[in-house]
Amino acid sequence: MQRITISHGSGGKVTHELINGLFVKHFKNNILDKKEDSAVFELAKIRRVAFTTDSYVVKPIFFPGGDIGKLAVCGTVNDIAVSGASPKYISSAFIIEEGFAVSDLERIVKSMALWAGKAGVKIVAGDTKVVEKKEADGIFINTSGIGVFEKDIICGVEKIRIGDKIIISGTIGDHGVAILKERQGLSFKSRIESDAAPLGGMIGKIMEKTNGVKFMRDPTRGGVATTLNEIIRGSNMGILIEEEKIPVAKEVRAACELLGLDPLYIANEGKVMIIVDPKEEKKVLTILKGHEYGKNAQTIGDVAHRYPGKVCLKTKYGVTRIIDMLTGEQLPRIC
Amino acid sequence: MQRITISHGSGGKVTHELINGLFVKHFKNNILDKKEDSAVFELAKIRRVAFTTDSYVVKPIFFPGGDIGKLAVCGTVNDIAVSGASPKYISSAFIIEEGFAVSDLERIVKSMALWAGKAGVKIVAGDTKVVEKKEADGIFINTSGIGVFEKDIICGVEKIRIGDKIIISGTIGDHGVAILKERQGLSFKSRIESDAAPLGGMIGKIMEKTNGVKFMRDPTRGGVATTLNEIIRGSNMGILIEEEKIPVAKEVRAACELLGLDPLYIANEGKVMIIVDPKEEKKVLTILKGHEYGKNAQTIGDVAHRYPGKVCLKTKYGVTRIIDMLTGEQLPRIC
Repeated sequence: MQRITISHGSGGKVTHELINGLFVKHFKNNILDKKEDSAVFELAKIRRVAFTTDSYVVKPIFFPGGDIGKLAVCGTVNDIAVSGASPKYISSAFIIEEGFAVSDLERIVKSMALWAGKAGVKIVAGDTKVVEKKEADGIFINTSGIGVFEKDIICGVEKIRIGDKIIISGTIGDHGVAILKERQGLSFKSRIESDAAPLGGMIGKIMEKTNGVKFMRDPTRGGVATTLNEIIRGSNMGILIEEEKIPVAKEVRAACELLGLDPLYIANEGKVMIIVDPKEEKKVLTILKGHEYGKNAQTIGDVAHRYPGKVCLKTKYGVTRIIDMLTGEQLPRIC
Repeated sequence: MQRITISHGSGGKVTHELINGLFVKHFKNNILDKKEDSAVFELAKIRRVAFTTDSYVVKPIFFPGGDIGKLAVCGTVNDIAVSGASPKYISSAFIIEEGFAVSDLERIVKSMALWAGKAGVKIVAGDTKVVEKKEADGIFINTSGIGVFEKDIICGVEKIRIGDKIIISGTIGDHGVAILKERQGLSFKSRIESDAAPLGGMIGKIMEKTNGVKFMRDPTRGGVATTLNEIIRGSNMGILIEEEKIPVAKEVRAACELLGLDPLYIANEGKVMIIVDPKEEKKVLTILKGHEYGKNAQTIGDVAHRYPGKVCLKTKYGVTRIIDMLTGEQLPRIC
């Protein structure tokens, strides 16, 4: 088996062979092909841009429903999309442990190319570093991304008002539970897959067809509970969500009960949380439900007067309790 | 001593404390302060942009003349600058090993803030991941960057012509030798420091005041020899450089002789190689020599008819030999 050597990161001949034989080959586009230190492109007539970065250290690197490469593309695409911008260009920077199988790298790179294509983004810049054995755990990938605002809509927490609806685009907890199951070698009867998906297309449609979106975010690390807390912290409004309305797949719920985990705190990689004007709620839900990544979309609660700065959950038994931010670590290296 | 824990990377409360108490505090600017998943900004009237990414895995993380944070800012700024664009915005993504000293992280972050300020760039997006002990070597940093083209000049290898001059902005090999010396605990009488520096200002002046720049690149991994080979490979022109004209600091030359290294292959982090129309050579040299980072600038050779696709060195003894690309690894984890 061909393995990555320190030479692959030296900047010399072997690095060039790897870049041309793998990255440029699979990520093929007219900007990357130039292989300059910077990708150069025009941003059409649009001037306002979104810029984001994320490193991916997920363990294991291959899991049901995805791999670190798919995650690296989708995660960054989604961070751009939730800002209201259309994802256009991404970079990919690899830190690879000496001895890593080249076939695994190729599998990851192909996955990135596939998902970049599906997401409608070009991978236009890259970097490869190799570190000695035991100085990294296999492979870490950073992707940064640029998106452009097609419409003059600005989303932001400051737009949120009492009565706004909180929509989640589908079942929660799938990604985190899929990773945990794989990592711990647990076996359940039913297959649990990561929900990793590029949401740019679906969100783009919402941005195009509706006007009432106040704020969006993808509830990744820390899950829905942490994301909602981030949104409402310091505000004079509160958030009230209803347990019965929160979509959780049967298998994920069963796994969570077994493992003592709360799906509200578990990472998602293909879901968007949308805070929307109640007048536009139905329109948004209709668009979501008509899309492959939004079939199980639900309104899970609203922005309320009570409990300023807090997130509250009305349980199935009618009790209302405060849902705090995640403290400490629930699932490390989930993305 | 306060140390980084897995919780610092969980996305929950402890992560927020780290982000607010350290990153937002030191990188302070109106775009980052919003703490959204994407930084949002306008690119004035300029539409053509440069986009680049690099991960930094240098070992040791603190060395004479710099640290991993300074390198992460300067390296990415320089990659943008050599494309002919003005560096404007950078992202910073940290992968940190559990147990890393928070005081070291703070020292790095402060250094990044300092050098971003000197380089005239804003750090507008960020990410933090923590991996378990022994799953990474202390800290790895990725920075991606965006620059804008102020002038309608396009640099590119396709503009290079026979007779063009090759200028290096100062002494070569300083960074690589400084790292190696530190890593191997060697002691020389004289102090050798990394040349790490942000070159955006100096290069911007050249782009503003002159018109004959054909191509620029910063000779980092693989050094001047590898960079020149990358430029001329596959061309029907060759490059001839003269050993006597190549500036090498006395201490660096002595260290290289002792260690059996060739300064032509050693990484630089504060140097730019400029290929320029001979009519503009003097003007470019004058601007370089008037700048703190270009005092030792020299024309080291030119683009020639002979040896198409090859880089040749005329030695002090009058012999001409081919200088190949770096093969294998000379100095791992140099940046």
